[in-house]
Amino acid sequence: MRELRVELEERSYPIYIGEGLLNETGAMFEKHGITAKSPVLIISDENTAGLYLRRVEDALKQKGYRTASYSVPAGEQSKTLALLQDAVTVALEAGLDRSSTVIALGGGVVGDLAGFVAATYMRGIRFVQIPTTILAHDSSVGGKVAVNHPLAKNIIGAFHQPDFVLYDIDTLKTLPIREVRAGLSEVIKHGLIWNEDFAYWCEANASKLLALDSEALIYALYEGCKVKSIVVSQDERENDLRAILNLGHTIGHALEAVAGYGELLHGEAIAIGMIGAARISVKMGQPQDVLTVTERIFNAFGLRTAIPAHLDTDSIMSAMMHDKKFKEGTMVFILPKAIGKVEIHKDVPISLVKETVDFLKQEG
Amino acid sequence: MRELRVELEERSYPIYIGEGLLNETGAMFEKHGITAKSPVLIISDENTAGLYLRRVEDALKQKGYRTASYSVPAGEQSKTLALLQDAVTVALEAGLDRSSTVIALGGGVVGDLAGFVAATYMRGIRFVQIPTTILAHDSSVGGKVAVNHPLAKNIIGAFHQPDFVLYDIDTLKTLPIREVRAGLSEVIKHGLIWNEDFAYWCEANASKLLALDSEALIYALYEGCKVKSIVVSQDERENDLRAILNLGHTIGHALEAVAGYGELLHGEAIAIGMIGAARISVKMGQPQDVLTVTERIFNAFGLRTAIPAHLDTDSIMSAMMHDKKFKEGTMVFILPKAIGKVEIHKDVPISLVKETVDFLKQEG
Ligand SMILES: NC(=O)c1ccc[n+]([C@@H]2O[C@H](COP(=O)([O-])OP(=O)(O)OC[C@H]3O[C@@H](n4cnc5c(N)ncnc54)[C@H](O)[C@@H]3O)[C@@H](O)[C@H]2O)c1
Ligand SMILES: NC(=O)c1ccc[n+]([C@@H]2O[C@H](COP(=O)([O-])OP(=O)(O)OC[C@H]3O[C@@H](n4cnc5c(N)ncnc54)[C@H](O)[C@@H]3O)[C@@H](O)[C@H]2O)c1
Ligand SMILES: [Zn+2]
Ligand SMILES: [Zn+2]
Repeated sequence: MRELRVELEERSYPIYIGEGLLNETGAMFEKHGITAKSPVLIISDENTAGLYLRRVEDALKQKGYRTASYSVPAGEQSKTLALLQDAVTVALEAGLDRSSTVIALGGGVVGDLAGFVAATYMRGIRFVQIPTTILAHDSSVGGKVAVNHPLAKNIIGAFHQPDFVLYDIDTLKTLPIREVRAGLSEVIKHGLIWNEDFAYWCEANASKLLALDSEALIYALYEGCKVKSIVVSQDERENDLRAILNLGHTIGHALEAVAGYGELLHGEAIAIGMIGAARISVKMGQPQDVLTVTERIFNAFGLRTAIPAHLDTDSIMSAMMHDKKFKEGTMVFILPKAIGKVEIHKDVPISLVKETVDFLKQEG
Repeated sequence: MRELRVELEERSYPIYIGEGLLNETGAMFEKHGITAKSPVLIISDENTAGLYLRRVEDALKQKGYRTASYSVPAGEQSKTLALLQDAVTVALEAGLDRSSTVIALGGGVVGDLAGFVAATYMRGIRFVQIPTTILAHDSSVGGKVAVNHPLAKNIIGAFHQPDFVLYDIDTLKTLPIREVRAGLSEVIKHGLIWNEDFAYWCEANASKLLALDSEALIYALYEGCKVKSIVVSQDERENDLRAILNLGHTIGHALEAVAGYGELLHGEAIAIGMIGAARISVKMGQPQDVLTVTERIFNAFGLRTAIPAHLDTDSIMSAMMHDKKFKEGTMVFILPKAIGKVEIHKDVPISLVKETVDFLKQEG
């Protein structure tokens, strides 16, 4: 088991990454001084509930904790205020009090919803994350929690740091391979924005990672979380530096929106977005390497690097416009300067972005 | 105009109390460095919208601020997640961004709802309170914001401090007298828990306050807010000291619940609760004065000091039980030791509480 400390002053917390950790849930609760007098609410989704809920409940019961559970349908459409209210119904009926804890047992969807429940129930109670997807390594650092509004994703939320994160990589064995691959895209992103060695390590270990080799996976999740935690420690409330985490996300979000959520997973969309950012960067004068290496890495993971041809360029452009990073013919973009280094550019010509989108479609 | 600073480290903020302040809204926004580039959302209720919205909008427009507005039905039933979602719809359509501000123009209901919108929109934006009730002097200090759940009041919320509070006492002139009287009950509470001189001053100035004499009102709101701010500064997240603010609230909440919200206003219920606490205190050995003076003060304001006779004692008791401050035949109570001083008692016999409730009913 490896342990990473996310440094956020009095809100600092550890991330435990290893095998067989679900069975340690109760012991970890004790270690973190969580009282057994107050009930614990475990929030999961229909997939993670069936697979892992019982194990977590048992581990808690063994140490004398009382639990209640609430499970939502799988998928993004569960991040709503309506389900937050339902979760609170369960919390109230189970008698959760101000010393209680909410556990998120699942991927980023469950993490965001359960985290927002913990942030707002009685104006904030303890929160423990048990991520069960690779993508959730990202959401396990930074304390961003939220639900969606019919008109905008993640628009209603809070910053609420967990007490600790228990990352049992055994749970990843049941994850569909497409989710594994897409989740790794966000791991690679952490290499690309901050850590050249790690980015190259990812390329070299692509097949091990896709095969969920334990040692490689623990290392990759550790390094991925570490990059994010360094960035977040320096900018907890997203004022400035934290923007670099959005490498690939400007184009990626537009692709997700136009494709309709579902055709492209988030990780798949931002992989293409990172290729787009690298191409723009090269066109603006960075060495060709930035693009070729980025492409090589994503190819090693079998992540597609081209935009599905049937997506309309104008729709993609106007989805980006909607993101409101545009200003007088230019827009703000996070661009790679080299592998492991990015810069915020406020002056990327819209015409160049459009040209890039068009080019990436012909590739497809 | 008087100014009180609520000391909460980097979340400190001023409360401006005076006449004609609504017209200064725009100037105050400028003074607080709020950008005119981002739109402002004004949340009000059907009463305050009709009376004061236009004035606030004009004052902001004069200084170049763009505004949007959202108004909810008057009353407690507007503190819901559904209306929070509606408010966010308006915020999104008006283009509110991370530099935008939400204004609460109204009493405690609007303050709690708008504050929770500000706390959660894009994970927290600026918040300005323009309280228009006397009771809202209480909610303007401390940063507690929340909505209700069908099973529990104020159970979903956050701590979110305003940038500043603009308390225009002219708005109180349209407040129904019953609301004035009930709001003053919470002002008196602040004297009773912390400031003997102020408690006696309230008694001596009861008729001036009920007549909304400007000088008296500004002084009373200032002193009331000051007590609360001292307590909150020492205990922002309600760990301990802050509990003393609940003088009268254990019995008061039970009466509100049993009477059905509406028969007794919050301020009316806690006035009776404070009489109850004083009576329990005397029975437990404090000097008789604590009770006689407390009664005298509330009498001076025409606030009823007895429980409506038709309310069932057992129902009141079980509503208190529901509050879960009970433990093996005793319960936790905030009790006055003297005028201007309270203590937390963890060992008040339930039998004494019941006897007190019964006694207060015979008084009625
Ligand atoms: N808070 C943050 O900082 C942050 C960061 C990144 C992403 N997110 C959010 O995360 C969400 C996406 O996360 P995600 O990709 O984990 O999605 P997800 O939670 O929907 O999980 C993806 C799918 O895998 C299933 N699943 C999860 N774990 C499984 C397991 N171990 N075995 C089998 N199936 C499993 C889920 O039921 C779901 O169907 C988005 O809502 C996004 O906004 C948040
Ligand atoms: N956040 C806190 O710390 C805190 C503290 C105390 C109370 N509260 C909350 O405050 C709420 C009660 O506040 P309230 O008593 O101000 O209730 P309220 O906001 O419902 O106002 C009472 C009534 O007066 C009307 N009104 C308001 N201003 C008016 C004006 N100037 N002229 C004419 N009518 C006017 C309202 O429309 C309403 O009908 C409760 O929901 C309570 O939970 C919160
Ligand atoms: Zn992402
Ligand atoms: Zn009160």
